[in-house]
Amino acid sequence: MPSSCLQFEIFHQSGRARVGRVTTPHGAFDTPAFMPVGTNATVKAMTPEEVAETGSRILLCNAYHLFMRPGQDLVARMGGLHEFMNWRRPILTDSGGFQVYSLAPLRKIDEDGVTFRSHIDGGEYRFTPESVMKLENDLGADIIMCFDECTPYPVTREYAERSVQITSGWARRCVAAHAREDQALFGIVQGGVFPDLRERSALDLIPLDFPGYAIGGLMIGEDKDLTWRMVDSLSGLLPREKPRYLMGVGTPEDFLDAVARGVDMFDCVIPTRMARTSHLLTWGGRLTLKQAQYRDDERPVDENCPCYCCRHYSRAYLRHLFQAGEILASRLASQHNITFYQQFMGRCREEIRQGTFDAFHRQWFADHPRP
Amino acid sequence: MPSSCLQFEIFHQSGRARVGRVTTPHGAFDTPAFMPVGTNATVKAMTPEEVAETGSRILLCNAYHLFMRPGQDLVARMGGLHEFMNWRRPILTDSGGFQVYSLAPLRKIDEDGVTFRSHIDGGEYRFTPESVMKLENDLGADIIMCFDECTPYPVTREYAERSVQITSGWARRCVAAHAREDQALFGIVQGGVFPDLRERSALDLIPLDFPGYAIGGLMIGEDKDLTWRMVDSLSGLLPREKPRYLMGVGTPEDFLDAVARGVDMFDCVIPTRMARTSHLLTWGGRLTLKQAQYRDDERPVDENCPCYCCRHYSRAYLRHLFQAGEILASRLASQHNITFYQQFMGRCREEIRQGTFDAFHRQWFADHPRP
Repeated sequence: MPSSCLQFEIFHQSGRARVGRVTTPHGAFDTPAFMPVGTNATVKAMTPEEVAETGSRILLCNAYHLFMRPGQDLVARMGGLHEFMNWRRPILTDSGGFQVYSLAPLRKIDEDGVTFRSHIDGGEYRFTPESVMKLENDLGADIIMCFDECTPYPVTREYAERSVQITSGWARRCVAAHAREDQALFGIVQGGVFPDLRERSALDLIPLDFPGYAIGGLMIGEDKDLTWRMVDSLSGLLPREKPRYLMGVGTPEDFLDAVARGVDMFDCVIPTRMARTSHLLTWGGRLTLKQAQYRDDERPVDENCPCYCCRHYSRAYLRHLFQAGEILASRLASQHNITFYQQFMGRCREEIRQGTFDAFHRQWFADHPRP
Repeated sequence: MPSSCLQFEIFHQSGRARVGRVTTPHGAFDTPAFMPVGTNATVKAMTPEEVAETGSRILLCNAYHLFMRPGQDLVARMGGLHEFMNWRRPILTDSGGFQVYSLAPLRKIDEDGVTFRSHIDGGEYRFTPESVMKLENDLGADIIMCFDECTPYPVTREYAERSVQITSGWARRCVAAHAREDQALFGIVQGGVFPDLRERSALDLIPLDFPGYAIGGLMIGEDKDLTWRMVDSLSGLLPREKPRYLMGVGTPEDFLDAVARGVDMFDCVIPTRMARTSHLLTWGGRLTLKQAQYRDDERPVDENCPCYCCRHYSRAYLRHLFQAGEILASRLASQHNITFYQQFMGRCREEIRQGTFDAFHRQWFADHPRP
């Protein structure tokens, strides 16, 4: 399998938490890393320069969405995703497994692949491991994901077991079909909320020697203690020297709990989605800018934040923009929220370097009690 | 009247067209000038830095909208419009006369002022010349406009005559009520489509010695030849040494026809509004990016355009963003369209300097026939 294009170095460890660096053909990013989501080849409301200014060094795009619109042929003809969207740093594409899962009951899964109806044109399409590898090869991201069967929740043991079998078989076919040496293919562990199935999934994938491993099918409705039990069941099993990516996660609290368990990579739409509904994230807690209490508030969203929004605008102005439905509101809030996420990740890395991550983790939950 | 804060110099003249510079307490702008519209204290989808990058040196905000939301008290407490919206260059506020006119039949005009229902909260409000001067003084723009009665079209001569009388009386009250020496108050000529009423309106205002004169109540449905006849009727009458502002205009063709008649200032929502619906303006004509013909188009919108959009993105990418409903589409297109408008204005100034404006004007209409 062509995987030499990705290097992962671990520089510090504090408990199971670790600080490292992933190097790709389009540059490196420090881990633990947060990847903003650019579903349609754009991080919503932001330019690539602004995304970089938040401290982001890798972003995620959705292969499913780009397959539907504008199509992989077009992106390939335009020189690939980096060129198309003017982001010259690392990109990861997910495989569409999760999006196809989200389309239930518009999808039908068999051993060979998935037939589904598009959320855009209502047409019928089919994904197989081979077609998805072609799709991700055409898009040209630095890190691409295996096509997996994302196990729903709640689910029977029998379903989850079959899902692991399918995902393992598809992983082998993805490895065989993957055709570009400048892209690193990551495996995805499934297994629902059954620790032994999670282990079986990991043990199926490890012999394939992926350059990185994702944990999929979590945070889809199960209790958090189940989530972390699944991650725990894998943390001694997944190869220590490979990056670990917990897909679709999450909040600052989730990052702490996951980083403490050795997770290195995250992606989530929370910061941009919350931004567009006026929810601003700060070290002091969440502000809902549409509330009347911010009407006269001359302060920036966060006095210590280095982002463009906090350097130039008052809460009162931002609230006014939200009240008036102005696009600039979404822009400024997105820049702030992603900056906050990256600052939070930077803090996690620093605490690990200092050997104080565990205390930071505990103090955070003392200040922000679990619900 | 406190008007010494505004200087206008004329450097070149070519026929009646002229190149000059208006200097305000927040800096200068070259004329003929196009002012992008920032209705709610934001040029839609753009940051102030991006607006400046288009070459814009003055923008317009709507006193009516800011009165309704967020309110003049708040803006004043936040240090005025410049500080509130982070635009440190010149600003012009219109008086709300046109917006109140647009609210018909929700408004009732009497000699003293206008009572109207808000388009936002449905509440009843009243504007008088004195209350509008207080409003514009509170907002703190460099150039503020008299409260006028914008004559509808079509309209009877009797209505237009009364409208001139009201507007002239209100202008005198605005001069008396205007209370800030760092703001220049412009008068607004009304008179519908009746040349003698236009003249009467101008003759009423000229003794008030405004530092600038606007022509209002045009391009609201009348034929263009009527529009230009009205502007012609004023061009020998309005003081040559004062800037002339044709409100709410227009297209590049309109600019040429107006500049040829000695107009110095313009504002219009066309470039930003068209941008948001995928209409991109270029020297070669208008592109509607949503059309399928641009699906595979690797070229920038305009190869010679210096804007951020044209430097970094293909038509294919921009079309994709429009198809996907992404905010970045509106951003890039707005930057491009305003840049085009400013480039066009720059070209007009250059042609006037070279003494070739008349030929440029004629050539443009040879290439872009009037409908």
